[in-house]
Amino acid sequence: MTIQAAIGDLSTLLGQRLTCSKGELAQHGQSETHFPISPPDAVAYPETTEEVASVLKICAEHHCPVVGWGTGTSLEGQAQAFQGGVCVDFARMNKVLEISQEDMHVRVQPGVTRQALNEELRATGLFFPVDPGANASIGGMASTRASGTTAVRYGTMRDNVMALEVVTAKGEVIRTGSAARKSSAGYDLTGLFVGSEGTLGLITELTLRLQGIPEAISSAVCAFPEVDQAVNCVIDTIQMGIPVARIELVDIDSVRAVNVYSGMTLPPKPHLLLEFHGSDTGVAEQAETFGAIAEEHGGSGFDWATKPEDRNALWTMRHNAYHAIIASRPGCRAVVTDVCVPISRLAEAVETCRADLKAHDVNGPILGHVGDGNFHAILMFDPDDADEKQRVLDASRRLVDLALSLGGTSTGEHGIGIGKLGYMSREHGPAWSVMGAIKTALDPDNIMNPGKLVPPRN
Amino acid sequence: MTIQAAIGDLSTLLGQRLTCSKGELAQHGQSETHFPISPPDAVAYPETTEEVASVLKICAEHHCPVVGWGTGTSLEGQAQAFQGGVCVDFARMNKVLEISQEDMHVRVQPGVTRQALNEELRATGLFFPVDPGANASIGGMASTRASGTTAVRYGTMRDNVMALEVVTAKGEVIRTGSAARKSSAGYDLTGLFVGSEGTLGLITELTLRLQGIPEAISSAVCAFPEVDQAVNCVIDTIQMGIPVARIELVDIDSVRAVNVYSGMTLPPKPHLLLEFHGSDTGVAEQAETFGAIAEEHGGSGFDWATKPEDRNALWTMRHNAYHAIIASRPGCRAVVTDVCVPISRLAEAVETCRADLKAHDVNGPILGHVGDGNFHAILMFDPDDADEKQRVLDASRRLVDLALSLGGTSTGEHGIGIGKLGYMSREHGPAWSVMGAIKTALDPDNIMNPGKLVPPRN
Repeated sequence: MTIQAAIGDLSTLLGQRLTCSKGELAQHGQSETHFPISPPDAVAYPETTEEVASVLKICAEHHCPVVGWGTGTSLEGQAQAFQGGVCVDFARMNKVLEISQEDMHVRVQPGVTRQALNEELRATGLFFPVDPGANASIGGMASTRASGTTAVRYGTMRDNVMALEVVTAKGEVIRTGSAARKSSAGYDLTGLFVGSEGTLGLITELTLRLQGIPEAISSAVCAFPEVDQAVNCVIDTIQMGIPVARIELVDIDSVRAVNVYSGMTLPPKPHLLLEFHGSDTGVAEQAETFGAIAEEHGGSGFDWATKPEDRNALWTMRHNAYHAIIASRPGCRAVVTDVCVPISRLAEAVETCRADLKAHDVNGPILGHVGDGNFHAILMFDPDDADEKQRVLDASRRLVDLALSLGGTSTGEHGIGIGKLGYMSREHGPAWSVMGAIKTALDPDNIMNPGKLVPPRN
Repeated sequence: MTIQAAIGDLSTLLGQRLTCSKGELAQHGQSETHFPISPPDAVAYPETTEEVASVLKICAEHHCPVVGWGTGTSLEGQAQAFQGGVCVDFARMNKVLEISQEDMHVRVQPGVTRQALNEELRATGLFFPVDPGANASIGGMASTRASGTTAVRYGTMRDNVMALEVVTAKGEVIRTGSAARKSSAGYDLTGLFVGSEGTLGLITELTLRLQGIPEAISSAVCAFPEVDQAVNCVIDTIQMGIPVARIELVDIDSVRAVNVYSGMTLPPKPHLLLEFHGSDTGVAEQAETFGAIAEEHGGSGFDWATKPEDRNALWTMRHNAYHAIIASRPGCRAVVTDVCVPISRLAEAVETCRADLKAHDVNGPILGHVGDGNFHAILMFDPDDADEKQRVLDASRRLVDLALSLGGTSTGEHGIGIGKLGYMSREHGPAWSVMGAIKTALDPDNIMNPGKLVPPRN
């Protein structure tokens, strides 16, 4: 058995840091979503790049599948070992290696989490802005090209990873990009590995852009009669050049759920939640200009706050919105959709989605990173009700069809894994085969996270 | 002869739009820099994507080299047909196809120039911000991953191309990316083709992000005693979060040249030239905050202006600086360096470069996109003086060595072509072979701009 032979060699290499204990395997076979538990055959805990290279050389020799693991918070089964093999857990490679205040960048190992990184940065006056909600590992965030609430201002992982160290499928260590802010020196390999979900290699180090902690931060909430008025308000806000740091849509069903869960008293209407970053006068100017635009679009109850406790309450509520929605129906599980459309089509997409869910008796409150045109419907189902689960999966598929027909994408930030593999051909057409050709060139034996993202090998 | 067979078939396809006239071939064999004239065997003027696909199918069948051509302003020989073959000139594919004001994006053909695009956008209140100086074609700018003076605020072509239509080496038409602002749907093929210099396929359509024309624009100049004070002023400016739209360094030799050429009266000191974009109060606040920072770093003569004629005079002077420098020594040619380093190492890089040029009797004024850590030394030589030309090429090589030793890159924005091919192995190590593997996978017969960017085929 090739996997067992690899495990033997890995055990010699790593000793106690290669485990086949049932508990560890089960833990690394789970995800936060609806896929079946799929434990790997072993879990490796490397401590250095050289060890990762040795792990991959052993796996290459034995044609043993390899799946990277950060915190296990991916939503499309990216970190699950559906073909067995070795899970490489980066828990012991979680250091901040170097902070450059003058260059406003940081070099980290992949296992450090977003929150741990920002804790270490606190004294520098700098922060890492990408915030997907979950306290994910930086390596995992890069691998799924994560983003979240702040992407409207600071971009996604695509925009915030400057350079990588990667171990290839052959066990070779390469460096992509540099510490310079830009380069035209050949193919953008950094951009290729970001979002590749561990199918081309394992990331062992990242250089990230940082931002200065703004002098002033204010947050705001505003209610709207209908979703399309909220969306049109967002379009005008962005066209006016107001550099909103966050601008989030919470639909009426989500408002009801967060009111119950977080003890809020928002009126039962679609809301925008905002954050402004800048100087004291800049933040005031942004908030006031936004307030005037919101009023033109029927906004009401506009209120902005600069007190940290008020802001924290607001964004804690937003971050807990998923749990609030799940808690609104005890015992349920959920499929979380992730379509992203051009912002001009966002109101249409949200309203069509809501009507479709209602017509098919699917329960799905909506949360949206509305400045990017990205929104999530939390499609709940009773795990013991096969018919409801099927209705949810069908609704999810129709929503992707809708997004593609509007010029959008099946996934704004959650990635492909196996959950969205079925949409890749439709979304990319012959370009999906180009992805497959790159995969074959860089991982000819198909050991890197096999069965995910690219077309199945013949 | 395979190239002649391809030309026969292309002539049948394109009629008069396939030419072998000596004048046209010579024109498409030139570049603005020091490489020898290398005419292609024919020039094709396709008018549609389908024609480009047919051209590439014919060239694939006959293993005939293909080189794309925009305006011929690339600086590393990217558009020159050093192995002969067919030059595909996009002059007849120069349309703006669709402007979306709500989504702030535009769909264009590759032959449209930067200035023509901004002319068409003027009435919309939007603009395309990337400005490499030359009035290059958008397709060419994408292919070399161009940037220029505004990258510090708006990013490079990497950040501003959302989606592409590309014809592959097989003549297949693919689409990469989408009109959505972000996506996690698989490998970032858009990012892979941007900067690939026509070695993987030909770009036939681009979707670009646009920006709102700011309510207010002001420009400023400030003199500094030494380069390192100017650079430290830039570092503080960026750390303070001042969103400068341009921040350019002009060294003392360049100041002398532009004073003569453009009739300016700048004091003979290193200068920073700046532009601020924002609201009226925002721009005033930015300029004043910058002025205070500059004063701390020994800046003098700080002055800012919002009158369009003053701004235009300043940026015309900056855009003409290269010609001003060349004109300062009639009959000379130049090697233009393009290193980019972490900004913390920029003062050291510039000063070391200046000392090195002086020690080797090389004449090389310096201009820098200092907010990115990118600077150009304009290394002049007498084309009839082989010894001086060699000294210039040696100095250019030492400067790249310096930049790489400081964690930087050989090229911030000009690309590789053949001019920087010799540095790729040092800059990327084994990652260069990964680029080669991708090239082989996507262009197995090596017909797309052969001899550029990737390792030579065995």
